[in-house]
Amino acid sequence: MDFDEFREFGHASIEFIINYIKNIRERNVLPSVEPHSVVNQLPREIPEQAESWRAVLEDLEHIILPGLTHWQSPYFNAFYPSSTSAGSIIGELLIAGIGVLGFSWICSPACTELEVVVMDWLAKFLKLPEHFLHATEGPGGGVIQGSASEAVLVAVLAAREQVVCRVRASHPELSESDIRGKLVAYSSDQSNSCIEKAGVLAAMPIKLLPAGEDLILRGAALRSAIEQDVTAGLIPVICIATLGTTGTCAYDDVDSLATVCEQYNVWLHVDAAYAGGAFALDECSELRRGLERVDSLNFNLHKFMLVNFDCSAMWLRDANKVVDSFNVDRIYLKHKYEGQTQIPDFRHWQIPLGRRFRALKVWITFRTLGAEGLRAHVRKHIELAKKFEVFVLADARFELVAPRALGLVCFRAKGENEITAQLLQRLMERKKIYMVKAEHRGQLFLRFAVCGMDPKPSDIEFAWTEIGTQLTALLAEQEHLAAVGKAGDVTELTQQFGLQLTNGTNEKSQ
Amino acid sequence: MDFDEFREFGHASIEFIINYIKNIRERNVLPSVEPHSVVNQLPREIPEQAESWRAVLEDLEHIILPGLTHWQSPYFNAFYPSSTSAGSIIGELLIAGIGVLGFSWICSPACTELEVVVMDWLAKFLKLPEHFLHATEGPGGGVIQGSASEAVLVAVLAAREQVVCRVRASHPELSESDIRGKLVAYSSDQSNSCIEKAGVLAAMPIKLLPAGEDLILRGAALRSAIEQDVTAGLIPVICIATLGTTGTCAYDDVDSLATVCEQYNVWLHVDAAYAGGAFALDECSELRRGLERVDSLNFNLHKFMLVNFDCSAMWLRDANKVVDSFNVDRIYLKHKYEGQTQIPDFRHWQIPLGRRFRALKVWITFRTLGAEGLRAHVRKHIELAKKFEVFVLADARFELVAPRALGLVCFRAKGENEITAQLLQRLMERKKIYMVKAEHRGQLFLRFAVCGMDPKPSDIEFAWTEIGTQLTALLAEQEHLAAVGKAGDVTELTQQFGLQLTNGTNEKSQ
Repeated sequence: MDFDEFREFGHASIEFIINYIKNIRERNVLPSVEPHSVVNQLPREIPEQAESWRAVLEDLEHIILPGLTHWQSPYFNAFYPSSTSAGSIIGELLIAGIGVLGFSWICSPACTELEVVVMDWLAKFLKLPEHFLHATEGPGGGVIQGSASEAVLVAVLAAREQVVCRVRASHPELSESDIRGKLVAYSSDQSNSCIEKAGVLAAMPIKLLPAGEDLILRGAALRSAIEQDVTAGLIPVICIATLGTTGTCAYDDVDSLATVCEQYNVWLHVDAAYAGGAFALDECSELRRGLERVDSLNFNLHKFMLVNFDCSAMWLRDANKVVDSFNVDRIYLKHKYEGQTQIPDFRHWQIPLGRRFRALKVWITFRTLGAEGLRAHVRKHIELAKKFEVFVLADARFELVAPRALGLVCFRAKGENEITAQLLQRLMERKKIYMVKAEHRGQLFLRFAVCGMDPKPSDIEFAWTEIGTQLTALLAEQEHLAAVGKAGDVTELTQQFGLQLTNGTNEKSQ
Repeated sequence: MDFDEFREFGHASIEFIINYIKNIRERNVLPSVEPHSVVNQLPREIPEQAESWRAVLEDLEHIILPGLTHWQSPYFNAFYPSSTSAGSIIGELLIAGIGVLGFSWICSPACTELEVVVMDWLAKFLKLPEHFLHATEGPGGGVIQGSASEAVLVAVLAAREQVVCRVRASHPELSESDIRGKLVAYSSDQSNSCIEKAGVLAAMPIKLLPAGEDLILRGAALRSAIEQDVTAGLIPVICIATLGTTGTCAYDDVDSLATVCEQYNVWLHVDAAYAGGAFALDECSELRRGLERVDSLNFNLHKFMLVNFDCSAMWLRDANKVVDSFNVDRIYLKHKYEGQTQIPDFRHWQIPLGRRFRALKVWITFRTLGAEGLRAHVRKHIELAKKFEVFVLADARFELVAPRALGLVCFRAKGENEITAQLLQRLMERKKIYMVKAEHRGQLFLRFAVCGMDPKPSDIEFAWTEIGTQLTALLAEQEHLAAVGKAGDVTELTQQFGLQLTNGTNEKSQ
């Protein structure tokens, strides 16, 4: 492709994106496809000769887009937001166009240094403790990881290796495998699946302690678990607290957990993947309580800072603990300044060797929105969720299952779980809005998360109208079934609603 | 930013990239910066108000670009290529603009399905064994990982968990920690640092077995190590072979390794991060020997397929072995089709939960280049390396340290290592070309890797002229020093060349 074609393709793609975003409300948020419908529309081999970019954009429009779930739509209310923005989109373009990797300083000095700068910017913006800044004297600093999963895994692995070293030194009579066999970690039963997965990957059990009635993990539960484990000869390694659980956006009690961790020399990591964005707001300062006592922290910029995935900020109070655990080096990676300056070689702060120039999209997004734009975005999510909460409270058929927290409202139809399950099923089939369900103490509920690039009050009204009318229709159908003597027969109800029970093969892994 | 501004910023950024790439030869490949020079030019906080994108592009040009090492320059001859292309650059733009995540099928069906399609395309293009295709009946298939490091780690962790399960079943008298303490893995002492790191992360020793004189690991060395370990009561888990080592692009003998692995029920993974691209060429078919016997395989698309980092293809003969090891699920991640079709939920095939729509840039790159374009690109790298090899062989002052392999030539100045070290130092200070050094059996050598988006014969001539003239200058200076009676005094020589010995603090982690 020559430069003229590149220019044409580039400009056409910018138009493509503008059209897509501008008209995103016109599409159903969920696609009308069955498994394999995209696969079946595409050829089975790479074309032998080059094709025109025009043909590619055509197929993107007519084959790929109809098969997508539209994450940037304001009608996407599932999981948590994964938002992008104009600055971040162009940032990705420039990252790819410049095409550098930044695993060590010499590999591309500006790539490393811009990351140092934007991580300090973000730490100040979020009012994190000073020891997390690169600009301070100590061994702390921030790094961009690919995802919250990776940040948590880095903390878990570094904490594990630190403890193995420490215990080997203090108990030379124990073998390394004896020590590794005694390690144990903790989190809440409300924490994200990536934490349990980190335990599997690290070959270290992570006990999911029962959160309180209010879904919050507190020091008392941790203390009780640690005391029991220490008595049994186990060695506590790390506790992963969550600020903004995936289920209900509950906030673990970092302060009381820190007290226990300090007493038992246990690493305290805070997964603030979602709620971290609210640290920037004075009215949410309570959320930051105890952060000066944690060892590490992660926050996803795509959740609240309009930097598209992948971009997960992680801060370490003492980065040496990670570097010492992960550093394996080769002569071809060494460079003149290695180990001699305060500029980190970020390859030692993460799982992979290679790393993209993600700092560039952060820098562009932050500058083109400004601190006030970023704060306004978080506040807008909160306001829109409040609006949704008012709708729930005003409709006697629904109830909240947890207090609204930031941009998340957890609610259900009163009564049997089956009503809420059927409601979600209807909503999914209509494809107008996309929510996911969760469960707590036997109660099924729906999570309404404010998402999208630019959600508006009218989008909240749209969603609520959809939910309300579908519950009305569902209840009417149930009444009809009851009237003809079939109430409670779920099989009938299922057939009535045309639910499909797919019986595919299970030969391939899911 | 409104859509008009977005359009302007987008178009200006396309121009920015075209200018950057078109004129990349005019820049020194290495930047003239000291640590902190970029940091010191940037403000300490996020600007409170939004700034114009014009100011951002200005700073990108005047602050960031001068601080970069230019990976897309044909004068970048370090490590291995990490190439991008017009299709891939626009692909990243579209990925960010569409902004979907694809951790499960329902999350964005086309995101998963396009990955299934392009991974099968690539497997066929590379003539991989049929059992690696999604389209076949068995449990095999391909997945896009972020990096070779992640692919290797996934193989290591999955192999580890498989063995723990198997041994627990066959030896119920052993505790899990007893078993874990006996696990051991193997690779060559020529393998990439990411393999040693995978061992650290997995808490499983990976023994780096001595490669032969020709830098190739063979079955005999593996057999001897395994027999010794099994006798000592250890449990062999996985062998990671390399096709195209980082040092010299040596190819381990997959066939003889497979024979040993099959006998001892050991997982065989092949890291073909670099050489994998050559599987597509009939003239390199020898490289594929034994691949039908391996359990998993990875190949970096940025090394030879012009898809920019991150994009590391991985194939599994039995993906269930990974899925069974990594699957931790939550109700909010479940969906109607889960486990019911042959479409995978790729979140179970990888470390993180979240995943970008990387298949899109692969699809666009492959279509806009065509299979013949991709093959031509690999062949061009080989031809250019041959040209460089001819230069080395024609200059009596230099010698090859290994046969040229694909696009890599390993060479040195004859005589003491110090000459080669000083030569590299001079080249680095002049910043015209960028190579890195490596070492084998006490011999220091330089690696010349053909890289860049569009390297040409004249670029090879440029590099060779630079290398030759700098050796001439170095030898002249040495002769001069010898004449004044200071030959061999390295300290003097160092001062003479103005080498800086930086004595920075080491408080922060490097």
